[in-house]
Amino acid sequence: MTAAHDLDAADTLRSYRDLFVGTDSPLVYLDGNSLGRPLKVTAERLSSFVTDEWGDRLIRGWDERWMALPRVLGNEIGRVALGAAAGQTIVGDSTTVLLYKLMRAAVALRPGRTEIVLDRDNFPTDRYLADGVARECGLTLTWIDVDTTSGVTADLLAAALSERTALVVLSHVAYRSAWLADGAGLTRLAHDAGALVLWDLSHSVGSVPLALDAWDADLAVGCTYKYLNGGPGAPAFAYVAARLLDEVVQPIQGWMGAADPFLMGPSYAPAPGIQRILSGTPPIVGMLAMQDMLALLGEIGMDAVREKSLGLTSYAIDRAADLLPETTVASPVDPMLRGGHVTLNHPRMREVTQALWQRDVVPDFRDPGGLRLGLSPLSTSYDEVERGLRAVREVLDSLG
Amino acid sequence: MTAAHDLDAADTLRSYRDLFVGTDSPLVYLDGNSLGRPLKVTAERLSSFVTDEWGDRLIRGWDERWMALPRVLGNEIGRVALGAAAGQTIVGDSTTVLLYKLMRAAVALRPGRTEIVLDRDNFPTDRYLADGVARECGLTLTWIDVDTTSGVTADLLAAALSERTALVVLSHVAYRSAWLADGAGLTRLAHDAGALVLWDLSHSVGSVPLALDAWDADLAVGCTYKYLNGGPGAPAFAYVAARLLDEVVQPIQGWMGAADPFLMGPSYAPAPGIQRILSGTPPIVGMLAMQDMLALLGEIGMDAVREKSLGLTSYAIDRAADLLPETTVASPVDPMLRGGHVTLNHPRMREVTQALWQRDVVPDFRDPGGLRLGLSPLSTSYDEVERGLRAVREVLDSLG
Repeated sequence: MTAAHDLDAADTLRSYRDLFVGTDSPLVYLDGNSLGRPLKVTAERLSSFVTDEWGDRLIRGWDERWMALPRVLGNEIGRVALGAAAGQTIVGDSTTVLLYKLMRAAVALRPGRTEIVLDRDNFPTDRYLADGVARECGLTLTWIDVDTTSGVTADLLAAALSERTALVVLSHVAYRSAWLADGAGLTRLAHDAGALVLWDLSHSVGSVPLALDAWDADLAVGCTYKYLNGGPGAPAFAYVAARLLDEVVQPIQGWMGAADPFLMGPSYAPAPGIQRILSGTPPIVGMLAMQDMLALLGEIGMDAVREKSLGLTSYAIDRAADLLPETTVASPVDPMLRGGHVTLNHPRMREVTQALWQRDVVPDFRDPGGLRLGLSPLSTSYDEVERGLRAVREVLDSLG
Repeated sequence: MTAAHDLDAADTLRSYRDLFVGTDSPLVYLDGNSLGRPLKVTAERLSSFVTDEWGDRLIRGWDERWMALPRVLGNEIGRVALGAAAGQTIVGDSTTVLLYKLMRAAVALRPGRTEIVLDRDNFPTDRYLADGVARECGLTLTWIDVDTTSGVTADLLAAALSERTALVVLSHVAYRSAWLADGAGLTRLAHDAGALVLWDLSHSVGSVPLALDAWDADLAVGCTYKYLNGGPGAPAFAYVAARLLDEVVQPIQGWMGAADPFLMGPSYAPAPGIQRILSGTPPIVGMLAMQDMLALLGEIGMDAVREKSLGLTSYAIDRAADLLPETTVASPVDPMLRGGHVTLNHPRMREVTQALWQRDVVPDFRDPGGLRLGLSPLSTSYDEVERGLRAVREVLDSLG
């Protein structure tokens, strides 16, 4: 196997790593799928925003730039990362709040249907929301059982779908296993059953190329603080296919989703287009940082990003086989079925994670017994992966 | 009448103005009730956050500080500005989303009751939300008609309340007139009828002292980008009285409102206490700036802030009587009934506002014919008010 330093030397994207804060420190950061590193230029972007834009333009900033920013950034995410034509994507609220709005909207688009389908290993917030939406709308949940090392296949979904299915809620990349779902195939299956699909793209956007329009996707939501490096709690994005925009209605009827926010009229009428997904005042300060990463991703292109991502995850899997034979790979070994992270299982991984953090090696832990290595394509080096896995070896040895 | 420069010279808070970005520029800013000016230290706070906290602590920042920040900041807002004991206030989401959650929660706390009471001049997002919540929960709206120059009085509220009232939604300071509602009195009236009150504090917090606990308030929401200077779209706060915390349930069941977010268990159980109002990942970057203003308000105290606020609004009203006799004051002349802004009506105020903006005098406009002067107590000087009103005079003269 090629050594880490040779792989880094051959990596055509290696120079991008220097653009991120802290990549020159000894810290090994393997949790970019929880929170991406900031770009160095982001510090200056935020401070000049305070002084030159907020401080100088004041309320005029809304007319000049901020009011359009949710749609401008949405279009940019759509173009760079989602394979989505303009006018279908918007930034605002948390992933959770946007998922809630789109779940409610989807259920309303399928009156008479009584079930929401999702898998038991979907991300907790998705499951909790679906449970709440089902209860308040008088629907039931149909659960798909998946192995925690894989995800929802066509066969599993087909068995769960019926003429009662209103909505299928799926993660594109599973948060534990990194299982990469078949976006086009599962969407088609659901459509054949007359159901809508709501994709959670949180663990794929910015690391796996997406093609929402080509999938004939209906609805999607994704997170911007992982592979889009928007900073802790940065606002999420929502996608609604153009063909649904006229009908989609979400329940949080606020002024910014209204047809004319400053008419301040007596009653609410939803804005035309994707703007109707908004509710309150757009979180502008939180939307600043992601612009730096989107510019980079646009420059590089998602195919090259994916190639690096696969290089990193393949390297981690290969080296784990050598260095950590007592662990099992809980992620798909087939690269075509794998997102941007790798999970290694071992009964003592909770202790291992704690010990690693103490020596400035920072992966994540997910029950049961999963050491989750999030490998950000542009800021993670092969050497960083190597040092991380060697540290796992040392910790496992020290635990005896 | 004392001249503006003498009032500024006598103002014990005058030195605080220098702490804000742009107060040394010729710009006259009279819209701090839409978007407060940034403090100069905020630029450095945001840039060092990127480099030293997000960039250095990375995912560890959640355990070390960020996970607690919604409650820590909520407690600080409660202590400094709301008259609320700790454990009842939390920061997260937009004002609109928090209003939605608390409206839904309130309606669920009054089963069998069928009406939401609010006034026709309440802020649009409040009215639109109430309309949507009423429809989805099978309730009706009972509207209070108010004069656009005043607000909801005890008599008006008493006439609207009945044994059918589940919830009353009130603004503490009316967004157009600056009418200051009687927090304690109206809360008591609603309670006597068995209803709950949801206060929107957006136009009062940081300019008018509040005493939520002393009012026996139930629920409240407020904005942090006006008089708390949190920056455009900064996240809002929600208050739930301690006596309601065990029963209150909101519909957006996300992981951050769950009892153990990282248990990632099969089903949602709401967290104990105010944490259950959260849904998604807290918007940390958007929560940074308000800390600088909260520190100042805590140092100065809300009584001194209110005194300056009343000085500014009284001065504006007195000078408008001299300089702008053709305008009418659409705000209460009695200072005890007035919040932190003053609205002057004239049929041509829309044109006037446009002309003022072109000469770097920035008030706001609100239909019908209202020039709204938002006077931020710590960043607005008497001289700024004087220059603004003289500019209005010149523009009115030039319009002929």
